[in-house]
Amino acid sequence: MSASLSRPRVGVWLIGARGSVATTVVTGCAAVTAGLHPPTGMVTETPAFTGSGLPALSDLVFGGHDTLDCPLPKRAEALTAGGVLPPGVATAVAAELAAADREIRPGGPTPGDTRSEAELITAFAGDIRDFVHRHELERAVVVNVASTEPASQGPHAPLPASTLYALAALRAGCAYVNFTPSEGMHHPVAAAEAGRSGLPHAGRDGKTGQTLLRAVLGPMFAQRALTVRAWSGTNLLGGGDGAALADPAAAAAKNAGKERVLADTLGTVPEGEVHIDDVPALGDWKTAWDHIAFDGFLGTRMILQTIWQGCDSALAAPLVLDLARLTARAHETGLSGPLGALGFYFKDPVGEGPSGLGEQYEALVRFARSLGEDKEGRR
Amino acid sequence: MSASLSRPRVGVWLIGARGSVATTVVTGCAAVTAGLHPPTGMVTETPAFTGSGLPALSDLVFGGHDTLDCPLPKRAEALTAGGVLPPGVATAVAAELAAADREIRPGGPTPGDTRSEAELITAFAGDIRDFVHRHELERAVVVNVASTEPASQGPHAPLPASTLYALAALRAGCAYVNFTPSEGMHHPVAAAEAGRSGLPHAGRDGKTGQTLLRAVLGPMFAQRALTVRAWSGTNLLGGGDGAALADPAAAAAKNAGKERVLADTLGTVPEGEVHIDDVPALGDWKTAWDHIAFDGFLGTRMILQTIWQGCDSALAAPLVLDLARLTARAHETGLSGPLGALGFYFKDPVGEGPSGLGEQYEALVRFARSLGEDKEGRR
Amino acid sequence: MSASLSRPRVGVWLIGARGSVATTVVTGCAAVTAGLHPPTGMVTETPAFTGSGLPALSDLVFGGHDTLDCPLPKRAEALTAGGVLPPGVATAVAAELAAADREIRPGGPTPGDTRSEAELITAFAGDIRDFVHRHELERAVVVNVASTEPASQGPHAPLPASTLYALAALRAGCAYVNFTPSEGMHHPVAAAEAGRSGLPHAGRDGKTGQTLLRAVLGPMFAQRALTVRAWSGTNLLGGGDGAALADPAAAAAKNAGKERVLADTLGTVPEGEVHIDDVPALGDWKTAWDHIAFDGFLGTRMILQTIWQGCDSALAAPLVLDLARLTARAHETGLSGPLGALGFYFKDPVGEGPSGLGEQYEALVRFARSLGEDKEGRR
Amino acid sequence: MSASLSRPRVGVWLIGARGSVATTVVTGCAAVTAGLHPPTGMVTETPAFTGSGLPALSDLVFGGHDTLDCPLPKRAEALTAGGVLPPGVATAVAAELAAADREIRPGGPTPGDTRSEAELITAFAGDIRDFVHRHELERAVVVNVASTEPASQGPHAPLPASTLYALAALRAGCAYVNFTPSEGMHHPVAAAEAGRSGLPHAGRDGKTGQTLLRAVLGPMFAQRALTVRAWSGTNLLGGGDGAALADPAAAAAKNAGKERVLADTLGTVPEGEVHIDDVPALGDWKTAWDHIAFDGFLGTRMILQTIWQGCDSALAAPLVLDLARLTARAHETGLSGPLGALGFYFKDPVGEGPSGLGEQYEALVRFARSLGEDKEGRR
Repeated sequence: MSASLSRPRVGVWLIGARGSVATTVVTGCAAVTAGLHPPTGMVTETPAFTGSGLPALSDLVFGGHDTLDCPLPKRAEALTAGGVLPPGVATAVAAELAAADREIRPGGPTPGDTRSEAELITAFAGDIRDFVHRHELERAVVVNVASTEPASQGPHAPLPASTLYALAALRAGCAYVNFTPSEGMHHPVAAAEAGRSGLPHAGRDGKTGQTLLRAVLGPMFAQRALTVRAWSGTNLLGGGDGAALADPAAAAAKNAGKERVLADTLGTVPEGEVHIDDVPALGDWKTAWDHIAFDGFLGTRMILQTIWQGCDSALAAPLVLDLARLTARAHETGLSGPLGALGFYFKDPVGEGPSGLGEQYEALVRFARSLGEDKEGRR
Repeated sequence: MSASLSRPRVGVWLIGARGSVATTVVTGCAAVTAGLHPPTGMVTETPAFTGSGLPALSDLVFGGHDTLDCPLPKRAEALTAGGVLPPGVATAVAAELAAADREIRPGGPTPGDTRSEAELITAFAGDIRDFVHRHELERAVVVNVASTEPASQGPHAPLPASTLYALAALRAGCAYVNFTPSEGMHHPVAAAEAGRSGLPHAGRDGKTGQTLLRAVLGPMFAQRALTVRAWSGTNLLGGGDGAALADPAAAAAKNAGKERVLADTLGTVPEGEVHIDDVPALGDWKTAWDHIAFDGFLGTRMILQTIWQGCDSALAAPLVLDLARLTARAHETGLSGPLGALGFYFKDPVGEGPSGLGEQYEALVRFARSLGEDKEGRR
Repeated sequence: MSASLSRPRVGVWLIGARGSVATTVVTGCAAVTAGLHPPTGMVTETPAFTGSGLPALSDLVFGGHDTLDCPLPKRAEALTAGGVLPPGVATAVAAELAAADREIRPGGPTPGDTRSEAELITAFAGDIRDFVHRHELERAVVVNVASTEPASQGPHAPLPASTLYALAALRAGCAYVNFTPSEGMHHPVAAAEAGRSGLPHAGRDGKTGQTLLRAVLGPMFAQRALTVRAWSGTNLLGGGDGAALADPAAAAAKNAGKERVLADTLGTVPEGEVHIDDVPALGDWKTAWDHIAFDGFLGTRMILQTIWQGCDSALAAPLVLDLARLTARAHETGLSGPLGALGFYFKDPVGEGPSGLGEQYEALVRFARSLGEDKEGRR
Repeated sequence: MSASLSRPRVGVWLIGARGSVATTVVTGCAAVTAGLHPPTGMVTETPAFTGSGLPALSDLVFGGHDTLDCPLPKRAEALTAGGVLPPGVATAVAAELAAADREIRPGGPTPGDTRSEAELITAFAGDIRDFVHRHELERAVVVNVASTEPASQGPHAPLPASTLYALAALRAGCAYVNFTPSEGMHHPVAAAEAGRSGLPHAGRDGKTGQTLLRAVLGPMFAQRALTVRAWSGTNLLGGGDGAALADPAAAAAKNAGKERVLADTLGTVPEGEVHIDDVPALGDWKTAWDHIAFDGFLGTRMILQTIWQGCDSALAAPLVLDLARLTARAHETGLSGPLGALGFYFKDPVGEGPSGLGEQYEALVRFARSLGEDKEGRR
């Protein structure tokens, strides 16, 4: 990345930095910066965001934690073979991948790890501070894109890893984004600490496919006064996420977010279940089928079905870049606490805000405008 | 309908009064008034519309024109056999169906009709005025729910029947709603006359299925900065509408409206065609399949498919009741010209207004509120 | 039923005689006999079966066991309201429904039943014998169409009810058909007894929707040398069956049959799960979605999806009539043991036979021909 | 291809030799021969064909006619970018692609071509003979995989190019396969000549997607005595075939074949249309949606929908290799005339034979066995 030295640069610290999403984030940021691809899927590159004072893509510096070892260039190669990354891109941005790879530190706790929770937090925060310091970054945003954890086991269970990382982010003075359904900053311990920190945070669980659709279809049924009787869904996905979500506890965390969208937009929870199946043959590709039974005038029974076939990493990555930029800028303008205006991006948003996608988009655009207004000098 | 004599009653004059939509409108209005069914699908029965001063369902009186002879109770029986109306309803509201049937006058021009256009308009306007007069109605709204006509043949062709009826509505001093893609008030002759009349009108082409979906999915792709490459669709439908739209000229009229929604919400017209097939075996049921090929981050190709299985008459009827009430109230409050705020209901709305369903809904709610504000005394 | 006295009549004794399938069987047999409807869905009414010596529909006499009380005419009324039976049919065959209703005896064991297994078998066999005797039937076939039971609990558990009925059938000298995935004659105790009895039996688990499709699509992939990587499916159904199969143990019984079809036709078990969701809003209607990921030439990844929307009772009933006729005739011609040639009808067929539907059909037609050959005198 | 010199080699002369199908044929044959990929999709590589005496893949030599200039290696590169060929394969078999490329001769008639039909046939036949001679081939099979031509214009129109090539094949003493819906050997002039030639031929129009499904689903409905009311379909495809079939005349040729499958398997032609849309955004990928409305017992209305997403070239190529091998072997064993036993591969098969896929497969396997029996010496 050819950032000019005079412009302040911003760090993006990825939890799960060797995963498919993170690899796509780093590859894509470099590819778009280099003009190899248009910024398709990046909302912050549309005209409504030009005056918001967001950091440029070329000013982002990547690092992160991961418990795995596979180097980023190798991961990018595998994603190319799987059709997630277009041929040639990984090679074209090999330098940027290698640079990010050098900034990945071992995560934890790994099996047999004897460090206490406090020691882990200290170690993680140290890694982040060191990254910011060495690169002379203006600030950094910590973004959780790791595999979904099982739902928490109650108040006396050990802190989930996602919460350790969230606490490390606060300790290092960084804004925080949780793109997964894991607990992260939602754990009471972290939530209390976040309140004291004066730092902004956003989450949780990126809205990339089935729930994105539900966030526009739910309002449609409500606005047309059609009664949804049952909303059923099945998700087929391979990749790491498929395996993680085959664990019923992890799936439960994810499904709670999906259900919330329907409850909030329909005003009622319809019949129907959501299944998440691990289908390794699909690789990083995801198919989501939804079947919606609804009543029309005089009780006439009708049905809508949707089939969404997408690549999860390619759907998530531009949103992660959006969120890193928006949250970094929010931090810069002095905002703190839950950023409810970013509900557009999440299944289960923090803070207050509407549930329908249209209204969430309007709230996002208003937020972007307000970010620009705080920084008159630079405009 | 047991309207109290002291309350002013409002006429709903249906062009195509013996069709499936009209029959469902009359049956449903009576059934909901009698408490036999909840008002599912009627937006004007939701809380946002309570203070708008709309005429009560029990105050609506039905009549209309049609070129066919089959009595409404018989039509309702056939719709019951076809699963459009629930068992028992047609019998329960037999009196209301018979009452409406008595108010249906012969339409035209029929084959071999020797009357001039001026004579037809005069005759139609006379029928409407007579209806208003005999029932001592405060006002009436003329709603076109007849089969779709072929697209117009140019400025020197005879006026299409839908335009003759639109002109008759103006002549009779009535507000006008075009629920079909036919030309109606869009014909230059009628448009000019409407401008002089001081009467409000709305249209055209009710948004009941595939286009309803497009009006929420189009904005979703745009808001997420996803590039739609191709949007293809096939509609299968039986009933009269299937046969009418098997005529390529009629289908062209309808497809123009569908395309407009995509162009307006996506900002570009993607590849892809729309087919409308007449499949008599489906009766009044319609299946619409949409296939949307879009690009995500770094050009990754993804696909969304939707399958909508609905009953056209049951989808249209509550919207027709909504429109009759809203337009009657608009007339009462002194509004004139194209009612752009009703774009929520139409594929190809008159006047100015947004194209995404969410924004259209907000515009509609604002409009409903403004209707209430004009009538403080009654609130 | 106006069977001539001189022709021998055949009993059809339904376990679950007040269920949706049984009600549709009795209603439909009477309606087809009376010429009110063509015998759509009845394979035995096609030309290939004319010389097989099957009992005429008008010669079938219905009775059965059930633990519920609701009279058949009332059940038929409910099925009419739910769209399973066409309007008017239940009324037209009210006499036949009432006649069958009089032949339904209390099933068991009911909660709190103090009778031993031996006593229950004796009681059930007595009911069947009495039915055959009073109606002077030539023979009777016992058909299990009751709700699916949980999978068996091991060799020391009490005999499942379906097995008690199967043993009662043998005791009463009747052929037996198991249209459900319940254990019935598959229980070792019953299987041993069946071997000694000299009676024919068939089963199990009628192939009515998703598995019917799999039985033609599986062979297609195999014959074309295409490699199926993953076959996933979700079934949504209301009605009693939906509730019964929401029990994971009952679903497991059903899914074993579905999986067998794939294993047998593909020669391998692909990845993928099958879900059965109880969706009461769907009533007797069932939607089955299948997603098949397969590899073509050079490993190119392709996908087939199928969506089957059917009415379970209407799919099952004509097959039950087919099976009763074929099994009665097999009994008459002296066949005994598992009737492998009826695999066309079942997910998990008894005896030997092919797994692809096409070959199963050929085997069925050969079987039908052989039934005719045994009875030269009557031809 | 490292064919041993002692074994007789067989030529495969492709009409449309630079098209996607031909490129995939040449690439895939080399890749499978080299052990880079398993022979997925090649029916002739399954055990049922081991004793048939078919030429080995390594004994096939490729050449052909085309009116385009783009070299095969370049075409293979484009197909790799489009996801049709897996990464790396085109490079791995570059030598074989180059070898085939050297054997491609200019086709015709090109615009402005002044040669007479007789001259064109003579030129084409000369090219083929020269190819056979130079490579010392035992024989060659001519296979038409060119873009679909418009349906023929009547007896006095010029011979379509596909027929010129078919006549050239006969002149050169070669067996002929028509994998497209174009007229080829079906033209009366060619049919008469084929009858005199003593050469075998097969066709027409490969059954690769929607029609493949129809050939298994049609028999399913028939065997289950379910009444198909309407069978509607839409095909979306890019690539050259999409553009060619956007021509209504070309589509008409294709649809006739599709309709024949339904008529033959159902015994009746149901309602419903078939659309073929050119959607360039889909590249070589094809989506076929089918909607089948059928009646069950007592007229209950049910629906099956199928969505087939495949890569046309990858579906066609292994079948082309199958057909070349089978037809070459048929020629070797002295068979002549239409090879009806190859109906398994075609929408609109020549000669006599069943229409359901299962029976067609059985006929094919019997045919393969008979090919082996003729050649005892070599077995």
